[in-house]
Amino acid sequence: MQHSNFVHRHIGPSVSDQKIMLGALGVASLKTLIDEVVPDNIQSSEALELSDGVSESDALNELAAIASKNVINKSMLGQGYYGCHLPSVIKRNVLENPSWYTAYTPYQPEIAQGRLEVLFNFQTLITELTALPMANASLLDEGTAAAEAMALAHRALRGKRNTILVASDCHAQTIDILNTRAEPLGITVTMVASHELPDQISALADDVFGVLIQYPGTTGDLGEPEIIAKAAKDCGAIVIVAADLLALTLLPPPGEWGADIAVGSAQRFGVPMGFGGPHAAYMATSDKHKRNLPGRLIGQSITASGEPAYRLALQTREQHIRREKATSNICTAQALLAIIATLYACYHGPEGLRDIAISVRDKVDQLVATLKKHKLDVAQAEWFDTVSVVVDNADSVIAEGHAAGINIRKHDATTIVLSFDETTSLSDVAAVVSVLVGNTVTAAALEQAAPRDNSGDRAHNYLSQACFHDFHSETEMMRYLRRLANKDLALDTAMIPLGSCTMKLNAASEMIPVSWPEFSDMHPFAPFDQSAGYREMITQLESMLCACTGYDAMSLQPNAGSQGEYAGLLAIKAYHASRGEAHRDVCLIPSSAHGTNPASAQMAGLKVVVCACDDQGNVDVADLQAKIDANEGLVAAVMITYPSTHGVFEAGVRDVCERVHAAGGQVYIDGANLNAMVGTAQPGKFGGDVSHLNLHKTFCIPHGGGGPGVGPIGVGKHLEPFLPGHRELGDAAGVVSAAPWGSAMILPITWMYIRMMGAQGLRSATEVAILSANYIAHRLSPVYPILYRGENGRVAHECIIDTRPLKDDMGITVDDIAKRLMDYGFHAPTMSFPVPGTLMIEPTESESLSEVDRFCDAMLAIFEEATKVKDGAWAADDNPLINAPHTAKAVTSDDWTHAYTRQQAAFPSGVTDGKYWPSVARIDNVYGDKHLICSCPPLSEYET
Amino acid sequence: MQHSNFVHRHIGPSVSDQKIMLGALGVASLKTLIDEVVPDNIQSSEALELSDGVSESDALNELAAIASKNVINKSMLGQGYYGCHLPSVIKRNVLENPSWYTAYTPYQPEIAQGRLEVLFNFQTLITELTALPMANASLLDEGTAAAEAMALAHRALRGKRNTILVASDCHAQTIDILNTRAEPLGITVTMVASHELPDQISALADDVFGVLIQYPGTTGDLGEPEIIAKAAKDCGAIVIVAADLLALTLLPPPGEWGADIAVGSAQRFGVPMGFGGPHAAYMATSDKHKRNLPGRLIGQSITASGEPAYRLALQTREQHIRREKATSNICTAQALLAIIATLYACYHGPEGLRDIAISVRDKVDQLVATLKKHKLDVAQAEWFDTVSVVVDNADSVIAEGHAAGINIRKHDATTIVLSFDETTSLSDVAAVVSVLVGNTVTAAALEQAAPRDNSGDRAHNYLSQACFHDFHSETEMMRYLRRLANKDLALDTAMIPLGSCTMKLNAASEMIPVSWPEFSDMHPFAPFDQSAGYREMITQLESMLCACTGYDAMSLQPNAGSQGEYAGLLAIKAYHASRGEAHRDVCLIPSSAHGTNPASAQMAGLKVVVCACDDQGNVDVADLQAKIDANEGLVAAVMITYPSTHGVFEAGVRDVCERVHAAGGQVYIDGANLNAMVGTAQPGKFGGDVSHLNLHKTFCIPHGGGGPGVGPIGVGKHLEPFLPGHRELGDAAGVVSAAPWGSAMILPITWMYIRMMGAQGLRSATEVAILSANYIAHRLSPVYPILYRGENGRVAHECIIDTRPLKDDMGITVDDIAKRLMDYGFHAPTMSFPVPGTLMIEPTESESLSEVDRFCDAMLAIFEEATKVKDGAWAADDNPLINAPHTAKAVTSDDWTHAYTRQQAAFPSGVTDGKYWPSVARIDNVYGDKHLICSCPPLSEYET
Repeated sequence: MQHSNFVHRHIGPSVSDQKIMLGALGVASLKTLIDEVVPDNIQSSEALELSDGVSESDALNELAAIASKNVINKSMLGQGYYGCHLPSVIKRNVLENPSWYTAYTPYQPEIAQGRLEVLFNFQTLITELTALPMANASLLDEGTAAAEAMALAHRALRGKRNTILVASDCHAQTIDILNTRAEPLGITVTMVASHELPDQISALADDVFGVLIQYPGTTGDLGEPEIIAKAAKDCGAIVIVAADLLALTLLPPPGEWGADIAVGSAQRFGVPMGFGGPHAAYMATSDKHKRNLPGRLIGQSITASGEPAYRLALQTREQHIRREKATSNICTAQALLAIIATLYACYHGPEGLRDIAISVRDKVDQLVATLKKHKLDVAQAEWFDTVSVVVDNADSVIAEGHAAGINIRKHDATTIVLSFDETTSLSDVAAVVSVLVGNTVTAAALEQAAPRDNSGDRAHNYLSQACFHDFHSETEMMRYLRRLANKDLALDTAMIPLGSCTMKLNAASEMIPVSWPEFSDMHPFAPFDQSAGYREMITQLESMLCACTGYDAMSLQPNAGSQGEYAGLLAIKAYHASRGEAHRDVCLIPSSAHGTNPASAQMAGLKVVVCACDDQGNVDVADLQAKIDANEGLVAAVMITYPSTHGVFEAGVRDVCERVHAAGGQVYIDGANLNAMVGTAQPGKFGGDVSHLNLHKTFCIPHGGGGPGVGPIGVGKHLEPFLPGHRELGDAAGVVSAAPWGSAMILPITWMYIRMMGAQGLRSATEVAILSANYIAHRLSPVYPILYRGENGRVAHECIIDTRPLKDDMGITVDDIAKRLMDYGFHAPTMSFPVPGTLMIEPTESESLSEVDRFCDAMLAIFEEATKVKDGAWAADDNPLINAPHTAKAVTSDDWTHAYTRQQAAFPSGVTDGKYWPSVARIDNVYGDKHLICSCPPLSEYET
Repeated sequence: MQHSNFVHRHIGPSVSDQKIMLGALGVASLKTLIDEVVPDNIQSSEALELSDGVSESDALNELAAIASKNVINKSMLGQGYYGCHLPSVIKRNVLENPSWYTAYTPYQPEIAQGRLEVLFNFQTLITELTALPMANASLLDEGTAAAEAMALAHRALRGKRNTILVASDCHAQTIDILNTRAEPLGITVTMVASHELPDQISALADDVFGVLIQYPGTTGDLGEPEIIAKAAKDCGAIVIVAADLLALTLLPPPGEWGADIAVGSAQRFGVPMGFGGPHAAYMATSDKHKRNLPGRLIGQSITASGEPAYRLALQTREQHIRREKATSNICTAQALLAIIATLYACYHGPEGLRDIAISVRDKVDQLVATLKKHKLDVAQAEWFDTVSVVVDNADSVIAEGHAAGINIRKHDATTIVLSFDETTSLSDVAAVVSVLVGNTVTAAALEQAAPRDNSGDRAHNYLSQACFHDFHSETEMMRYLRRLANKDLALDTAMIPLGSCTMKLNAASEMIPVSWPEFSDMHPFAPFDQSAGYREMITQLESMLCACTGYDAMSLQPNAGSQGEYAGLLAIKAYHASRGEAHRDVCLIPSSAHGTNPASAQMAGLKVVVCACDDQGNVDVADLQAKIDANEGLVAAVMITYPSTHGVFEAGVRDVCERVHAAGGQVYIDGANLNAMVGTAQPGKFGGDVSHLNLHKTFCIPHGGGGPGVGPIGVGKHLEPFLPGHRELGDAAGVVSAAPWGSAMILPITWMYIRMMGAQGLRSATEVAILSANYIAHRLSPVYPILYRGENGRVAHECIIDTRPLKDDMGITVDDIAKRLMDYGFHAPTMSFPVPGTLMIEPTESESLSEVDRFCDAMLAIFEEATKVKDGAWAADDNPLINAPHTAKAVTSDDWTHAYTRQQAAFPSGVTDGKYWPSVARIDNVYGDKHLICSCPPLSEYET
């Protein structure tokens, strides 16, 4: 063991602990165990084609050298991406603090009240600024949010109309995504100049289901949205607006002039541009559409003790419940980024946000006044942060801008566009004026603009809620962040043994480069020669991921696993079409699949044909063949997860792949469980044509409390031409994300991980992940049956334990177990997926033996507790399981009427040191969905 | 209010809250309040001569531009400062996490068990590596630690011998500090070549009280310490060794070859060089001297419920208790740095540390082998990390080194010295070889050294304690850090209203530059042209501090307030001497002074003459004049604190200064309470000749859980020539710290603060600090008498409340109040200083009105609780005050026999949200001092 070797920092069990675990399993070595687990016919015999791992400091130095090749100019490129200041107190205590970034999706709300509160406030922020009553807890980016809005509108009119009119001054990348998404859904996207929209709506009234406008327009116009909205209403079409949140602090809000749906990005509320992402997009709607909102929704409900508490609302809408009836495949959010944006708004408050907006607009006013003095024409009458300027030669102006360190956007040969933001200083204004007029203009020489008539500005009636007023001093904000963090159980407190979610270490050295300005301050559409560092890192990462998976090419564009699935299926469709087989439209999906699979297939315009699984959860090959035969010549693809969602390496996977290939279909291997395969087997080699990877599972990007995720796809050579394009890369065909490389800013995390682990380290990680899962199966199996095992009786990197007997015998549900685990200081494993009433446990390689044992001890103790209920020692309606979790308030109550003691309630393992206290008692889900409250009412409502 | 204005982030109460507070006081404006508080004859009428404050991002950009002028070469300069890797998990979660850096000194141990545990482990680390049984919880730097050891040894032989022999291969800066410290104590420092020490000891046996050696020597020799030690023992002298901790993982430890005291630096255990500091020095001794150890000592004791817990041991030794009998003026430690060093050792464990040491030594072996091949002589037979090399021309080699990006140390005209460290790579070795041999040598071309005979290496018998073995994976370390942080109440949880300690906001933007490599990776003795950025920042900071105080010159060298006092008194002495008045040796000190004042005077060789205070705590001018008259012609200085330690602006301060000046004395104004004066009055203008500032009080350097501190001194023009020198600045006269600018790495914190606040912001901060203190006095005075007020009935920035009536009437001690405050979620104010049985409360400007009110509510509720005891509702021997603090375990115990409820115990204010739980019950101080346990026994002791 070398002190500088990162591998033993990442892998929890020491070598001697690994021996203890192997001993418990009766296996001589890790090699033997892997031989028992991974089928011969797919097991890799050679090391991954990767360099040896290097130390944390060497990797940081190497990446810093690459990052230094990026050139960070002052960006005036706009188009949905703006410079902003992330307040240091939020940067240090949220973005750089594991209490926030290592948290999981808040499916267990009793131990997630901190981030649920902020996400609830995000929804409040959005509803207040848009003046629409219902907002979700974020979407992936503005482009996909607009596409989701389009789909929602299309469904709302029950598919009877099929045209969406799109204002031509929408951001170009948004239009591209609409085009990708529209085609499989049979939607026609028609571009119309903004001022012609009212007429065109009337002209196409019968087929127009929706209208999308940008507010302000991409070149800065404010337009006449109320007139467009009225025209749309008149013909029953739905009005979608992509609106800038900062502009909405000054401009009349969408809800007041008739928009039905507002979407947009919260990036400029403190989130760095990061070469395109991750950022939180938003979607808000009128009340009518609230139950059709895609993505996550945080609602307020009440606890068992009658107090208000937050939770995920309307989860039955989610794709893993609705499967092929799903209306969206979105199964994540951009929680961490939505949290940052919300906290930014809390820190500034409405006056501060307005002050920022006014200061931006004032600088544009000065720019325009100064340009006019120099006889330069501004192409519009009104603006917020963006103006178009007519010049002699846009290209030469842009080149001069680069020389002056400023990035300027080209609209056409004689028009440039300038967008200002929070970071634009008067010196920057002077510098760009100097470029435009051809000689030096100082900040002092800028013209003062005529005083504005602000009577058209929005009234100061928003964000009156306390959270936007109480935390304006840094001390108050710092303490608020700490209090919130204390409510949540994240990886910095305990193991989060979520099956299929791979909650492994997110190492600090992996996170550090995310904060480097060379990575964080790059606009996604910056000129290519400025992003050399980014592209070098990306190219290396693509190669690394190809080496890990055995694929030939990789696209890092999809910014979530669901996006990867969708992009992968589009690639398959395009491939078939290129061979004259566009009619292939059947997607075979085993019944055990994650609900996202059928949802994605649906969105890609494929017909889902479900094939059966056998008792062991393996694909039923006979049924598969029958379905292939029944759809002869029509099979586009099969989607399988490997190892299976049952946590088992199916021995027959090669056979499955061969049968589908024989039928002319392509094989999509869902990479959700790739953590069992890195270094042991390569999907690109044993039959996969395409896989998405979850960098936020296998490759250390933190879950961020429910996003960001990154879902790149790897493909075989034949599919490479059909990977997602982007207009910045010259061809927008198949584009799925707003930015060319999706959430580029967090890719360094994965680069660092692979660079530090090297081939041997990655294989060791996989081995230990499998070892730990088998060790847990071994320890728990005496009381909890292991539902599925492979041919040699082993599980893969996770195991499903059957807790239904406790329900049957003792009346203790899987929910009770999950909630009781909180008293023991754990987050529950995955509940009821893929089999209702079970728990799926994945320890990952990062959990130490002591933590794994602590978890097993807790699970066994819970079984003993359940036995006491069965034996009658504790009543079925009053025992520590059904009353769990126990809050500090509950166990100190003056009346304690339970048959078990307070100490049994609070310290069931007997350990008091390091006790984590759930902040609320068990939350009532049904109540919350019946009484849907998804934002905080304004102060005025309390007064009346 | 502008959104980017830092002032309203720093100042807690909003403008409208300030109005509420002024209203409560019946004062029309802040201006009126300040007129009531600050005497006319000292109040500043003009704004400070500082630039306007700038935004956080502008200040960061400005400082980054300055920092970029630093050149960071590969350092091979050694001399006690070495490159090292601070593990990212520790950097992010400790150095950059307010839970750690905003903590206060652990005087309230029940809410400080986290950092106390680590500091206890620091002591264990030191005792294990030195093989000496007792170590303290850190000292300021190696140089001053050696000086403290010298003083300890001198006292141990009761001053009957007065010579210390110092090996000439000690670090030069250490020798300089010994010389400064020795002179006032009447000690003769005699330099002797290491190999001549045995003979010289014998020759001077009658007068030698101590011997100091460096291990390894500054030029790399290992020497023969056991022979020296034997010679010293033989003549009854005390052996002091300055030993390198990393070397001690391989070399025979001091305790095994006869050293009595070991000192040194823990810097290379993960703490950046930072241009000289802050770093934790250590001191370990044999059992015999344990009760004479200077500085803080963490001991284990037991709680009221009989469980072990940590606390500060032997506090009665401390200067604020012993006053003029003090043996050291040290009143702080380098807690945060000692914590980092300890965690570094925990993360690596003994094998990892040894591995680092071996890898360093191996590279030196390769260097030597390669140089020999190229016919270059190494001037020694043995080495650890440092070797001397004979060259033709040292200057030209050094110049070539700089050209190659390597800093090489000059020993003499034909000898250079190279020190390797954890960060030295084989490429670095090759690069320096290339410089030495004059042509390119690649890493691959380095010679392999002959295998070492390691039989002389130390046995692997150290650091067997669990803490050095349980946290080697990053996940385990991250969770350990979180668990520890959860035990402690720091500023990120609640107000810490410590009188005189000014626990104000340490803003994240102020902390960020500390992590920049341009600041963190600079060796303190790097060539001047490489530190241009540092020096520019330092020069600006000196000017800023002069502007704040009205002094003419500033020295940033003192790395603690106590050091500043000492340096200031030395300057006064030197000034008198320069005028032929060296006989002036009387230092007048009011009876209310902080104990550090007389201790410093004592160390500076001055006689302390105490003068009386009147009932209001003001200097009794008649008594002062009487003492002046009685010491006619002998008065060197008066030391006063202003505003006084009683929290009052004495109206007569000018008179006091004038009387002392008239007598030919100098006026030392202790700057502990400067937070009441920045922008309102300038000590350099109303009579002060010298003041120390506490940058960790007034100027936002965080307390770090008990250090680092920075205590610069400002002086009038006439004292400027007598500010501390340093050999790196050309003259070591009066040097008090090992590095030229002391703890340079944290100076950017203060630079940022002043730059962001500007003149107006700093004055506002002072005004609000005074407002808040008066508001608290107003709210509490109905039940707690305010002990001291100024002429207009106002307090300054703090107030002393009298809690003795509770003792007299109700049997409730000030201790009970302090402990009960923990149940309310607060850290107690300063207890029993300056008046026993009282509490001194300082809210600072950073606490919001809501937090200040929450504190006042708690204090008033405590009074009500005490009244219940008086009234007999609660028994005198069983009530929530004397039983406080209440742990979670206590309030959930199955037996609850108290007359008050569990909820009254745990949630006395009725608020459960955000409850902070003290981790242990009240700790028994007397037991701990009687049964002194200051380190963790090795594993083997548990076995026997």
